[in-house]
Amino acid sequence: MGVKNMKNISGGVTAPQGFLAAGVAAGIRKKGKKDVAIVYSKVPATCAAVYTTNIFKAAPLKVTEEHLADGIAQAMVINSGIANACMGKDGMDSAKKMAEITAKALQIKTEDVVVASTGLIGVPLPMETIEKGIKEAAKVLAVEGGTDASEAIMTTDLVKKEVAVQLELGGKVVTIGAMAKGSGMIHPNMATMLGFITTDAAVEAGCLKKILKEAVNNSFNMISVDGDTSTNDMVVLMANGLAQNPVITVGGEYYGEFAAAINEICITLAKMIAKDGEGATKLIEVQVKGALTLEDARKAALAICSSNLVKSAVFGEDANWGRIITALGYSGAEVDPDKVDVYLGDLLMAKNGTGLSFDEEKAGRILKEKEVVIAVDLKLGNFEAKSWGCDLSYDYVKINAAYRT
Amino acid sequence: MGVKNMKNISGGVTAPQGFLAAGVAAGIRKKGKKDVAIVYSKVPATCAAVYTTNIFKAAPLKVTEEHLADGIAQAMVINSGIANACMGKDGMDSAKKMAEITAKALQIKTEDVVVASTGLIGVPLPMETIEKGIKEAAKVLAVEGGTDASEAIMTTDLVKKEVAVQLELGGKVVTIGAMAKGSGMIHPNMATMLGFITTDAAVEAGCLKKILKEAVNNSFNMISVDGDTSTNDMVVLMANGLAQNPVITVGGEYYGEFAAAINEICITLAKMIAKDGEGATKLIEVQVKGALTLEDARKAALAICSSNLVKSAVFGEDANWGRIITALGYSGAEVDPDKVDVYLGDLLMAKNGTGLSFDEEKAGRILKEKEVVIAVDLKLGNFEAKSWGCDLSYDYVKINAAYRT
Repeated sequence: MGVKNMKNISGGVTAPQGFLAAGVAAGIRKKGKKDVAIVYSKVPATCAAVYTTNIFKAAPLKVTEEHLADGIAQAMVINSGIANACMGKDGMDSAKKMAEITAKALQIKTEDVVVASTGLIGVPLPMETIEKGIKEAAKVLAVEGGTDASEAIMTTDLVKKEVAVQLELGGKVVTIGAMAKGSGMIHPNMATMLGFITTDAAVEAGCLKKILKEAVNNSFNMISVDGDTSTNDMVVLMANGLAQNPVITVGGEYYGEFAAAINEICITLAKMIAKDGEGATKLIEVQVKGALTLEDARKAALAICSSNLVKSAVFGEDANWGRIITALGYSGAEVDPDKVDVYLGDLLMAKNGTGLSFDEEKAGRILKEKEVVIAVDLKLGNFEAKSWGCDLSYDYVKINAAYRT
Repeated sequence: MGVKNMKNISGGVTAPQGFLAAGVAAGIRKKGKKDVAIVYSKVPATCAAVYTTNIFKAAPLKVTEEHLADGIAQAMVINSGIANACMGKDGMDSAKKMAEITAKALQIKTEDVVVASTGLIGVPLPMETIEKGIKEAAKVLAVEGGTDASEAIMTTDLVKKEVAVQLELGGKVVTIGAMAKGSGMIHPNMATMLGFITTDAAVEAGCLKKILKEAVNNSFNMISVDGDTSTNDMVVLMANGLAQNPVITVGGEYYGEFAAAINEICITLAKMIAKDGEGATKLIEVQVKGALTLEDARKAALAICSSNLVKSAVFGEDANWGRIITALGYSGAEVDPDKVDVYLGDLLMAKNGTGLSFDEEKAGRILKEKEVVIAVDLKLGNFEAKSWGCDLSYDYVKINAAYRT
């Protein structure tokens, strides 16, 4: 990680001071798989969230938005297995009920509970099972519960996604922890992914919102597994202030460092999600530079990363750079076709928009790696962006052909 | 087909009077596969074309655009195997050379030749092989050559795509014939697909352009195999006037009927392409109605048809309507989440944006068919659109993992 004074530490959401968590198997899902998680702060925390752009925003997101109107939360409750989306009024009632049950069990205010769900759309939540799970989770909250929580939010994820870092701000040690889920239906503007970040830093509410939004734009909104943006997803950041650092404000002394740390945390989680894309065998990183605007750089990087044809070629280890050019050409970014350079790793494949004869063996070696970098220089301006995705394999189709059944 | 007085006849591009064609195996591709086609009109014809929107427009398209500046053409030359895209000045020289060789062999003007290529990007055309092929094809031009031509333009296509119809306009029998290729990299605004339509109707040049553009928007621009828009694709329509019908003009007496016939021809070819999508086992038709604008209807239909998750679910015969809603929700179309009805075939799955319990067995039967209809009613306005695509199977990945090698 590139942030000065920052070091990785073990753990996840319970790494910062004052956070407890639990993950239990309530019985929403099969075979004793954990499916209900709670993350709890001993004191009310400043809290910001970013939500899906999908018009069919699921009920838990709407309830969370209401609860975060005052920028304060003390707990997050999450279930996997059922998304509680497209369920009309019943869905809203269930999401509110989840917050109420959690608040009662933790003896906090209902409006201080963040609610999240992930799983199948259009199926009712089994509220008795959920209630049992929430009560059980509330009883076993612990500093050691972070990993259980990260497991309880997984759906088709193959690996749990946790990360934590520490840095010093104004003589105080500040810790940031996080967990995420996401594997399919992953595309910008919040795909089926959930991210929960906790920190003991003291941060002003508006500042927390700004930092989270920018970090999400650089990270979760720059990954693509399959181009689908889900109804349910959000990223939440809770800051409880227990580190007793000078309060971080926009433009203040510690703003840059703290924002950079949150940015790194989000990129780390986003890459974990891309790498764990359904059926993925390789992580693809697309680097675009020389763009006229930041938006152009992002559009270009995402179009390449999202192309089924590019993804299939990477899976097949086939150096088919024409597909990279093709995706760039329909990305919507300002492109001069006679200026573009395309690299596979550090191997130049096309210069000024024209194909070169290249070392097939070297290209083959680059494509055999677990992480493949595709770089494009538009040579028009000074903006750059990175995006992350994964290859498209037989297993993606297999997983998604019978997700519901 | 829904056009009055119109009947299907056998044949393709040579069905109309005065058209000859040929398809030969020049040796660009392996195993004696036909790879060079010529379509020739005995007299110069009015000609219109629609081109890819990809910024990296391939050289043959640029040359064709120049040649059609006067709205006249007499022959089309097409090669498969190599796309002649991203080859800089050499690519332009090769495309011009293809037109020159064809013009010389047919003793017509170079500017009256339409040039098209399809295949691998970034590889030079073997001009000696192409020249040999063009000369050979020119020698064997025949009314019987339409099918050979339709085979010569195929790449990963499994079936040749030909169609012809007849209708009476002003007491004269008018014939329209067509062929197309396309199987992967298929998405709106001209994907890797080529369409060549011939007719002996007499049509004013500007009118021909307008009719073609509208028909393409309803057909080729409403199919999606994988969301990729290629560098090479175009649809060309030649009208040589030999049917001696009263000249068709915009708003004239026969405009509506003729435009409807071209529209039907284009939709028929577009559906053939969607059905032959790489690895496809099923044709998907998405019908959107009740949209506020035509653009909204098209956006919504295409988003659903293009979703990897919808496509995988159809392949797996899994009635996962949540994915239909999800795609609709990020389509960019104006949608009221509390109004949308979703049907699988004639089975209502969600009403007013809320899931219903439905007959799983009936849903299973609908999904077992070779053609699956997904219908969405937005209940906001009066516009509707249809789009066509195919399911996403293991074989799509297999075909595209090693296309180049």
